[in-house]
Amino acid sequence: MRLIYPENLEDIALGAAVLGTGGGGDPYIGKLMGIDAINKYGPVQFVSPEEISDDSFVATSAMMGAPTVMVEKLPKGREIVDAFLALQTYLDRKIDYTTSAEAGGLNSTTPFTVAARLGIPLVDADGMGRAFPEIQMVTPTMYGIAATPMAIADEKGNASIINTMDNHWTERLARTICIEMGTTAMIALFPMTGRQLKESMVPGTLTRAERIGQTIRQARQQHENPIEAVRAVVGGFELFRGKVADVQRRTETGFARGEATFQGTDEWEGRQLTLRFQNEHLLAMRDGLVVASVPDLITILDAETAEPVTTEGLRYGFRVVVLGIPCDPKWRTPEGLALVGPRYFKYDIDYIPVEERVAQTSRAVAV
Amino acid sequence: MRLIYPENLEDIALGAAVLGTGGGGDPYIGKLMGIDAINKYGPVQFVSPEEISDDSFVATSAMMGAPTVMVEKLPKGREIVDAFLALQTYLDRKIDYTTSAEAGGLNSTTPFTVAARLGIPLVDADGMGRAFPEIQMVTPTMYGIAATPMAIADEKGNASIINTMDNHWTERLARTICIEMGTTAMIALFPMTGRQLKESMVPGTLTRAERIGQTIRQARQQHENPIEAVRAVVGGFELFRGKVADVQRRTETGFARGEATFQGTDEWEGRQLTLRFQNEHLLAMRDGLVVASVPDLITILDAETAEPVTTEGLRYGFRVVVLGIPCDPKWRTPEGLALVGPRYFKYDIDYIPVEERVAQTSRAVAV
Repeated sequence: MRLIYPENLEDIALGAAVLGTGGGGDPYIGKLMGIDAINKYGPVQFVSPEEISDDSFVATSAMMGAPTVMVEKLPKGREIVDAFLALQTYLDRKIDYTTSAEAGGLNSTTPFTVAARLGIPLVDADGMGRAFPEIQMVTPTMYGIAATPMAIADEKGNASIINTMDNHWTERLARTICIEMGTTAMIALFPMTGRQLKESMVPGTLTRAERIGQTIRQARQQHENPIEAVRAVVGGFELFRGKVADVQRRTETGFARGEATFQGTDEWEGRQLTLRFQNEHLLAMRDGLVVASVPDLITILDAETAEPVTTEGLRYGFRVVVLGIPCDPKWRTPEGLALVGPRYFKYDIDYIPVEERVAQTSRAVAV
Repeated sequence: MRLIYPENLEDIALGAAVLGTGGGGDPYIGKLMGIDAINKYGPVQFVSPEEISDDSFVATSAMMGAPTVMVEKLPKGREIVDAFLALQTYLDRKIDYTTSAEAGGLNSTTPFTVAARLGIPLVDADGMGRAFPEIQMVTPTMYGIAATPMAIADEKGNASIINTMDNHWTERLARTICIEMGTTAMIALFPMTGRQLKESMVPGTLTRAERIGQTIRQARQQHENPIEAVRAVVGGFELFRGKVADVQRRTETGFARGEATFQGTDEWEGRQLTLRFQNEHLLAMRDGLVVASVPDLITILDAETAEPVTTEGLRYGFRVVVLGIPCDPKWRTPEGLALVGPRYFKYDIDYIPVEERVAQTSRAVAV
């Protein structure tokens, strides 16, 4: 156990935005919310999965909705814990811990806000090792753990508890409620025991995010190359370097969907990369060839500062570096690919790990 | 207290469909469901509002959705009581009685199905004295009684509990969930005390429905004019008599909406009536002049048998009589008209009681 203070949150939010692959919310907003809660309610107790007992009880807390709308419609008060408390009341038992559903600028810190306000410890884990757009897209789904009972609450005082036949139905019902609530809502879900958390979640994600954030911060302070520092710490590959040439974005069925095009600079001069996203980056094509796809991480960093760029922050003219990062091994199984592979997102391609794609396309260029 | 047997349900469903003004579901389906439940679980104890204690606890049960879809997607089993049981579990107390949210072919008998299956008594009342398309459109809303906590369940095993800031938000959230569940769902809502029921609901609606049903049945048996018998027992006015010339119907945003045109026959030969509906009939215009509007009841009966015709049952060529029936006096107050008056449904006209409109238009014809 250690205590998390505002300065830790800065690193966690920054690093989690790298893992958020364009989604998971804005790290600046997440940081502000978490810092505000810690300043008011005190530091958060941060524990590793091994530290919690098998029969303890945990639920994830997150903000749900289109990031494009989240930026404009921030939770400010009671509604941040309303969903969590509604779930606890419904279950009629104390929820001992909260944890992250996903890594992302906002949703890595959202649980800290809940933990600080309710005075409960937070477990260092998440359900993805990255961010994904839909509720069922977490490793616990592969272990048969139900997302429900799930609570969803808005800032107007509306709240709902849902129970569904499977986690795909949780996504359907919760998404439709979230849209009606204004395309963003606070949620508490995946109530589970400590034992289930240990077997089904991705351990250490928040510590990993913190290390990535620290690395960027220190590289900036020491005037080293922060991009190279990130690449090294995440074990990723530079897929492209260039300028944003075009962004098409629409908020539909509760998601921020769209496509961005980048024109190459430096060694990528004259070449082009196209990126497709649904809240998170899903697919990158360089000169028409796929170079990375879900479930691997496709992360866009500001070319100078290595600040992660979220899908809603992409603007014409931005100079960026596109990184491909191998995903958690759980996602590379047949069960994982059925949940979050390219075909789930309607791309008619096989999943090939990003390290293999990079090796193949390098050879192709060399020929 | 008396016991309700299948034969009572026949009369109740038939009479409630007259009060259902085209909506509230098909009486044949409602009757079959109720009879099936009573045959399996025994007769239902039927009590008047005065018989229940002030501190007893009641909730309404109903089927929600577009009647056009209800016809094709009937609840058959456990889901009929799933919503009621989910509400009871959430409230963590026994619900002593159920009652009707609305009068209508289906929703007058739905609570009997719940009462039979759960072995609880049913209170002779409803929240409208007729049927209306939206959840907040009940007299308890005028008394500040919340529709939530409300439960909503489908046949697939999905269920949701919602808590909302007001009854309009209950309608919004529940409608969106209902649509996602397949445009029809079972609901349990308006949990309240016996005292609240007595002050806010319309008493005796189910007995009134039974009397209307009896009247039609007896008139048919005795070869009397069943239309005239209905008109007399409800205190209504014949607005038109004619053939269905055109029906335009669409299922949108979870409702059956549309317009029907009738060509006059008999003393209405050469004249035309247009009817607008949203699940229920909202407005009737004869030769371009409004002759009846919500909240008064506009009921369509088969010209021979006095069988009520629901919006989804309207077919080209049907010979019908259109009745206008004064609504419960609670709806004629400014608060009532704000909830269910013509302007709420986007018709830019003042509400004028049907008996006054009939007197005016008769004078106009006489001149």
